[in-house]
Amino acid sequence: MLDYSALRAVSAVVQTGSFEKAAGLLNVTPSAVSQRVKQLEERLGMVLIARGSPCTATEKGEWLCRHMENVGMLEAELFGHLPGLVDPAEPEPRVTLHIATNADSLGTWFLAPVSNFARRSGYLLNIAIDEDHTADWLQRGRVIAAVTSLEKPVQGCRRMALGPLRYYATASPDFIARHFPEGVTAEAIGNAPALTFNQKDRLQSRWVRRVFGEDLTPPTHWLPSTQGFVEASLSGMGWGMNPAPLVREHLNSGRLLELIPETPLDVPLYWQINRLAADRLIDLTREITAAATACFNAS
Amino acid sequence: MLDYSALRAVSAVVQTGSFEKAAGLLNVTPSAVSQRVKQLEERLGMVLIARGSPCTATEKGEWLCRHMENVGMLEAELFGHLPGLVDPAEPEPRVTLHIATNADSLGTWFLAPVSNFARRSGYLLNIAIDEDHTADWLQRGRVIAAVTSLEKPVQGCRRMALGPLRYYATASPDFIARHFPEGVTAEAIGNAPALTFNQKDRLQSRWVRRVFGEDLTPPTHWLPSTQGFVEASLSGMGWGMNPAPLVREHLNSGRLLELIPETPLDVPLYWQINRLAADRLIDLTREITAAATACFNAS
Repeated sequence: MLDYSALRAVSAVVQTGSFEKAAGLLNVTPSAVSQRVKQLEERLGMVLIARGSPCTATEKGEWLCRHMENVGMLEAELFGHLPGLVDPAEPEPRVTLHIATNADSLGTWFLAPVSNFARRSGYLLNIAIDEDHTADWLQRGRVIAAVTSLEKPVQGCRRMALGPLRYYATASPDFIARHFPEGVTAEAIGNAPALTFNQKDRLQSRWVRRVFGEDLTPPTHWLPSTQGFVEASLSGMGWGMNPAPLVREHLNSGRLLELIPETPLDVPLYWQINRLAADRLIDLTREITAAATACFNAS
Repeated sequence: MLDYSALRAVSAVVQTGSFEKAAGLLNVTPSAVSQRVKQLEERLGMVLIARGSPCTATEKGEWLCRHMENVGMLEAELFGHLPGLVDPAEPEPRVTLHIATNADSLGTWFLAPVSNFARRSGYLLNIAIDEDHTADWLQRGRVIAAVTSLEKPVQGCRRMALGPLRYYATASPDFIARHFPEGVTAEAIGNAPALTFNQKDRLQSRWVRRVFGEDLTPPTHWLPSTQGFVEASLSGMGWGMNPAPLVREHLNSGRLLELIPETPLDVPLYWQINRLAADRLIDLTREITAAATACFNAS
């Protein structure tokens, strides 16, 4: 059988960042916490906690913490049916759900529904921004659900289509006057600074390919921030693909212009949620799908 | 002597994400690009480019790309003095400056001055968000300058104080009514969900320690987004330390309240810039310090 007091010690150290605070949380002495963690590490032959300020989980320790959270979610359900199991001397267990989202959803519609859910349910949420590892994270239990552009159903998950997030290729009027005096030609696009979120961001290239029918390589600034993209576009630093919900007003007022009118790019998004958790988190799924629909229909 | 045509091939592949596009950028055949990269990798006995879609730099490849950008900056200066050196057949070289910033500066005052600088200078900028590796990145040339809370002067850098970014412990009125009906006591703080940016974010703990004189461990949501913090505070999901420039209006209008009136936390920020580059980037430093001063004095 797993030694749950040791597992609980590891997750408390990671949660609080120190052995002393973990001891306070668990109502035991720091040396008891230290001993439990050490014995488990020796038995497994691997380091679970990177000692430091703060103490953090190693990769192996991370998996163990995720396991404890999934168990916590099951326990919370069990306590609902059998309240007598709750030990009144123990602090009320708070369960943290790990959820991934792409950055542009977090910057537009994602936070309102998860906030509603958190307030009503009492769950704590750990929001991770990710575009690359979502399938892996879902499969290995690193996150329990994700908003993702990943169309392929992840093994062990339910997948729901949320609809497309619409992007516009936008820049400020002075940027367009400066860099595209003769219109948005292939040559001009090849010389006008674009904005790119990070190495994985192909939105600008996809738009260029669709419009010009060929791969061009615009010079680019790199800016890993959804809000920063809008600000940089407004200030005339570069052009970039901005999510419709963040630029609709700027487009209406003329502070931003589409490089070429009516040439949006739609990115379909999905909600992928672990099958084992899906039934228990049906409220979360409902909030997420309703908010996405409302946001995407408005664009 | 370094084989600069091979180095240029590596950086072009990383910049464009593929051997084909790099070939287009350099006006040579894809097989020439591939050969140059391969020969250099064989000579060094290490992989410089992780082949994929897109192709990215390995850690060793990253250093090589940084070197090429620093050389590019020196060349740009040289061409100013000796324009005859510019080969009219070659595409105009665009130099990318790598700059790090803490997330909250990027979310408040940082983008306006770097945008001004980018527009006037023609430099491309690669903005990296970082709180942990700044000293290392500056020392090893991974970035050329950084906005950081790191007070200690980094070897090889000039350091300028930018002033303190002010934070307020804030929550929505309904959150405060719900979680602090008898005031913000130590016990209530231990049960009310806080917001934490990531494992390195000690601002909430520092504020709690200062106010209550002891370490408490509030339950917490994890949310790695500056704008997300403000939204989550407004929606009553949790309380968190928010930068004054983002919450001033919300505090004035009463949409957010300080947990305890007039208990801000000030975080001094610094501009650290590589000494070799400092003279050439004096305009950037001027923009940065002026914008920081204006923003911090307004809080």
